Amino acid sequence: MIRVGIVGGTGYTGVELLRLLVLHPDVDVSVVTSRSDAGERVDGLYPSLRGLCDVVFSLPELDALAECDVVFFATPNGTAMLMAEQLLARNVKVIDLSADFRIQDVKEWSKWYGMEHACPDVIGLAVYGLPEANREAIKQANLIACPGCYPTAVQLGFFPLIENNLIDLSHLIADVKSGVSGAGRSAQVSALMSETGESFKAYAVNGHRHLPEITQGLMLVAKQQVGLTFVPHLTPMIRGIHATLYGRITGDANMVQALFEQRYRDELFVDVLPQGLHPDTRNVRGSNKCQIAVHQPQGSDTLVVLSVIDNLVKGAAGQAVQNMNLMEGLDEKAGLEAVALYP
Amino acid sequence: MIRVGIVGGTGYTGVELLRLLVLHPDVDVSVVTSRSDAGERVDGLYPSLRGLCDVVFSLPELDALAECDVVFFATPNGTAMLMAEQLLARNVKVIDLSADFRIQDVKEWSKWYGMEHACPDVIGLAVYGLPEANREAIKQANLIACPGCYPTAVQLGFFPLIENNLIDLSHLIADVKSGVSGAGRSAQVSALMSETGESFKAYAVNGHRHLPEITQGLMLVAKQQVGLTFVPHLTPMIRGIHATLYGRITGDANMVQALFEQRYRDELFVDVLPQGLHPDTRNVRGSNKCQIAVHQPQGSDTLVVLSVIDNLVKGAAGQAVQNMNLMEGLDEKAGLEAVALYP
Amino acid sequence: MIRVGIVGGTGYTGVELLRLLVLHPDVDVSVVTSRSDAGERVDGLYPSLRGLCDVVFSLPELDALAECDVVFFATPNGTAMLMAEQLLARNVKVIDLSADFRIQDVKEWSKWYGMEHACPDVIGLAVYGLPEANREAIKQANLIACPGCYPTAVQLGFFPLIENNLIDLSHLIADVKSGVSGAGRSAQVSALMSETGESFKAYAVNGHRHLPEITQGLMLVAKQQVGLTFVPHLTPMIRGIHATLYGRITGDANMVQALFEQRYRDELFVDVLPQGLHPDTRNVRGSNKCQIAVHQPQGSDTLVVLSVIDNLVKGAAGQAVQNMNLMEGLDEKAGLEAVALYP
Amino acid sequence: MIRVGIVGGTGYTGVELLRLLVLHPDVDVSVVTSRSDAGERVDGLYPSLRGLCDVVFSLPELDALAECDVVFFATPNGTAMLMAEQLLARNVKVIDLSADFRIQDVKEWSKWYGMEHACPDVIGLAVYGLPEANREAIKQANLIACPGCYPTAVQLGFFPLIENNLIDLSHLIADVKSGVSGAGRSAQVSALMSETGESFKAYAVNGHRHLPEITQGLMLVAKQQVGLTFVPHLTPMIRGIHATLYGRITGDANMVQALFEQRYRDELFVDVLPQGLHPDTRNVRGSNKCQIAVHQPQGSDTLVVLSVIDNLVKGAAGQAVQNMNLMEGLDEKAGLEAVALYP
Repeated sequence: MIRVGIVGGTGYTGVELLRLLVLHPDVDVSVVTSRSDAGERVDGLYPSLRGLCDVVFSLPELDALAECDVVFFATPNGTAMLMAEQLLARNVKVIDLSADFRIQDVKEWSKWYGMEHACPDVIGLAVYGLPEANREAIKQANLIACPGCYPTAVQLGFFPLIENNLIDLSHLIADVKSGVSGAGRSAQVSALMSETGESFKAYAVNGHRHLPEITQGLMLVAKQQVGLTFVPHLTPMIRGIHATLYGRITGDANMVQALFEQRYRDELFVDVLPQGLHPDTRNVRGSNKCQIAVHQPQGSDTLVVLSVIDNLVKGAAGQAVQNMNLMEGLDEKAGLEAVALYP
Repeated sequence: MIRVGIVGGTGYTGVELLRLLVLHPDVDVSVVTSRSDAGERVDGLYPSLRGLCDVVFSLPELDALAECDVVFFATPNGTAMLMAEQLLARNVKVIDLSADFRIQDVKEWSKWYGMEHACPDVIGLAVYGLPEANREAIKQANLIACPGCYPTAVQLGFFPLIENNLIDLSHLIADVKSGVSGAGRSAQVSALMSETGESFKAYAVNGHRHLPEITQGLMLVAKQQVGLTFVPHLTPMIRGIHATLYGRITGDANMVQALFEQRYRDELFVDVLPQGLHPDTRNVRGSNKCQIAVHQPQGSDTLVVLSVIDNLVKGAAGQAVQNMNLMEGLDEKAGLEAVALYP
Repeated sequence: MIRVGIVGGTGYTGVELLRLLVLHPDVDVSVVTSRSDAGERVDGLYPSLRGLCDVVFSLPELDALAECDVVFFATPNGTAMLMAEQLLARNVKVIDLSADFRIQDVKEWSKWYGMEHACPDVIGLAVYGLPEANREAIKQANLIACPGCYPTAVQLGFFPLIENNLIDLSHLIADVKSGVSGAGRSAQVSALMSETGESFKAYAVNGHRHLPEITQGLMLVAKQQVGLTFVPHLTPMIRGIHATLYGRITGDANMVQALFEQRYRDELFVDVLPQGLHPDTRNVRGSNKCQIAVHQPQGSDTLVVLSVIDNLVKGAAGQAVQNMNLMEGLDEKAGLEAVALYP
Repeated sequence: MIRVGIVGGTGYTGVELLRLLVLHPDVDVSVVTSRSDAGERVDGLYPSLRGLCDVVFSLPELDALAECDVVFFATPNGTAMLMAEQLLARNVKVIDLSADFRIQDVKEWSKWYGMEHACPDVIGLAVYGLPEANREAIKQANLIACPGCYPTAVQLGFFPLIENNLIDLSHLIADVKSGVSGAGRSAQVSALMSETGESFKAYAVNGHRHLPEITQGLMLVAKQQVGLTFVPHLTPMIRGIHATLYGRITGDANMVQALFEQRYRDELFVDVLPQGLHPDTRNVRGSNKCQIAVHQPQGSDTLVVLSVIDNLVKGAAGQAVQNMNLMEGLDEKAGLEAVALYP
């Protein structure tokens, strides 16, 4: 059994990791830390886990975490970078669900995240944990930077188009809609049900932190600069991301459906829908799947890709577990087989 | 008092007309028709109207409707065209909330709506009821084709850009999100709460009936062809439309905020937000307002316009009443002053 | 015009007062205070009010408030009692939407609200602002204690049964469900959409602050002790309260429908539904109405009363305006005529 | 592997059975019938099952079903009774999720369900599939009548009180709230999101079909008549039932918490919360658990029990699978271990 620690177990990505890991056949969750709830039972805070988890929240202490094989950071940005180096030095594998190691350019990182990086030398060791792009590197990695939720949905949707030189890379558009759990489990007026229920809005149009992450990922594939307009929106539901992607055709789009199917044929968690269908976030709710469709409306020169995930699963905790499975040589889908909760 | 008739009073646009008209200071609602509920009290079907409306649903009969000064059609497509000509002949003004008279090209109309038009000669008499584009013509009109909900939000957002030659007209993108009341009050599995709640999806990517209507409206302003990719989405809330519009800058965008403010300075129901803000559909819920913001993210060459309305008010019944006010020489905002219901 | 001040304009009852008062024909809102947002425009915080309200939030200062004819307190408990006495001394009428003056027994008040009362001598001057119980006293009052949301729905439902000696007063049950706006506009994890959406729970079963208020009101009518079990619940919607009330029949229940109709025949804002119907909170959303139905299931000896209100209107701001109208000799329904927002 | 058939696979209980059974380690779903969708792939109608289910909907034919070991009926009332006898005759075990075999008194059944029973002689063979009441009988049964959703939550909440003679049996009250998926996947205006979203109502106060079922179950335990007032409500969420139960204390209530804990100590799917807590439907969403709390508010003589389930799992498909596990000698929790989906 793989001994797992979770740092920051009281947020939504933390409890989602627990939801997946308490039933994972190869894992023993031995440490779950929380500064605010240390000493309390995990299932006291999360009654959904009653009967499945006997762990008590502890303070985040290096020695206890160093007993683990793998430590997940489900912490706010700026925390994992304070402990990752020490854990790696003690041969613990680290999977960071926050943004600390996602951006290879540390100046760019500091600009968007508003702080100095605590261990810039370690960034280069981090592997970006998107298995559909980096599977072999992930298998060898000791430090994983798990992708953000928006970047997961957007990159998986754009990859086949970029890899096949099908679209104008200078004017990509990603219009993306997220459920409110993406805002996290912290007390803030803007995330109250009275504020977010029955309403829809865009936010951060002038620049969201996931923009440089997406751009970095697309450029790696394109091997050239890309110009992306990324507009995130908040939609009145708890879980789910729907990315609507637009690209102007520059290549031969006749085979676009086949290219998508071929690109993801062997992927366990990316499912290309038959031509003409539209994915619906409910069909991936609670599952680690990404469902994708591609359309060319009215035969115009603009392609539209629809890509949906559950932001807490494929967009966070599920993808983190998928990375762990790869790093530990387990079945890639271990612990990740649950069917989406429809309705 | 203006005597008003409503044909098709049992759908959401019908009951929304009633919500607005029973308190309108210059209107007496004298006839409300319904084939399915004829003989039943209106406030029996809609208890929200108890104490405010004594009307009994009647069958749609020409003679009774001809006693009215104005008749609204809140019917499915294909109904208004069967009665409009006769009512006009009897000097009744007609305001059609359906799509029967929206498209001037009757062949195009038939293609999208799947039927022959019953009175193609009358289409030319219809004025497209978007006051911010056609106010003077509306004042003189006897037959109004009320705009669709999507077309209202999209056109109001694009007008200042097109009128000022700011964007590339061949590659406009409208990514639009609608609440579920847009699907109407008819029994269909796809609109059940268990199907639409807590989920988000695009639909009709390959062609939605509002596409030719939007294109027609934009071309009238542009005085040239426009190329539009229009992707409608369903978002899990009851009321509200949020249009996110994208256009590539071809002109001088420095003054874009000022141009928007100037374009709508005298409009009662279009409100341009201060620079940097994002409109939220809840802030127009139940009101006839359209709130708009314009952004140029990261100083790129793509403009993003955010435009929100309540689909049942400015997107349907409220706009219809605004048209009636103009046609009858009333205060344009009579009956339309309610503040949005926040939270 | 009546000059109105609102102390605490940044919560949901505050903004709801503004929604109603900016269109009230006899009112001029001249002062809106907020410690946190002083100096900011009211319509900056609440874009739903753009174009309707030019007021800037100010600090709560006695001299400015003393210029008003009526001051509403839309503040947390414990604030109105610090200023009410001084305002009354300067001939300003005070309408308190908080709980400071609701309980006549000051010891009981302190027990439930966990603080000493700042002006116990003033409590006796306060009139409980439930017009359907106290209309004449309200007309003469200078200080109004506006009822809580739960107490409004519950008392209006029980009154006809108690006044007619129909039920066993020692075992009343009120099973009441509230939308989440009742929790207010403050940053708290428990009111996040991710916590309250798509879920239902009871809370405070062992004692909610509205229990002594309800009991006090029912005892005034019953002129004897009453035993009440009151269980509040949180339901995943923004606005609305649904009270389901149970009482065992001790009198002659044959005429119960007629008794309800007679009791509320002349009430503008209480609407008894025809026999056999069930009220729905959406039919009073945004309106000042209470809709009530009474049932005797299966001919048993238990009566079931269903009573619905909008917690922010008849349960708070609307009732406060109704009180103001009565105190100022205005039409009782001035500013309160909006039709419920259905759907 | 147990060969399973599902008759009526297109409703919510049918797709929920599939969600649970496609991952059940001991089951092979070999037949799924649907009159309306025969010939279509199951995962075409339900994209959440893509990659997990290769079955094609077939017409319900006896010979194909007779090849199965167990056949589930997830059909409207009145269907299972037409085929059950023949399947039993061919040694197929039948688990009926509809109401056809729930009521032992056939006249009572006909009164509430409005039809003649097709096989009254078979009713006596049916075992009521509530494992917490009937485990041993279920193990021996060939025909299971799965409890309704409301009856499951209500009976599990009342059992400890009745078994210990703690409450007055003549005046039980069950105030129960259900999510909208309980209304099923059929086209009806009353279940549209525009009708049920953001609203709360009671319904069928004068008599709901689950009333005789609950009464029958409680009487079996009480061994005497019981008087129950049952008021069902619709709450704006998709999944979940919350029962709030009231009983007047007639015995010694001091040990009530301990009695509940003892009653369900060995039950896998009933979880008694620690004293003072309130269960929340989200904590059982998607899981087969029932969470229960018991309160004695203010030390009064009324007990309040709070009991929550997911109506589609413990209230339908999950309980059906639990029954199958018992009948087939499998681990009772096989296929039912998923953690609730929070948030």
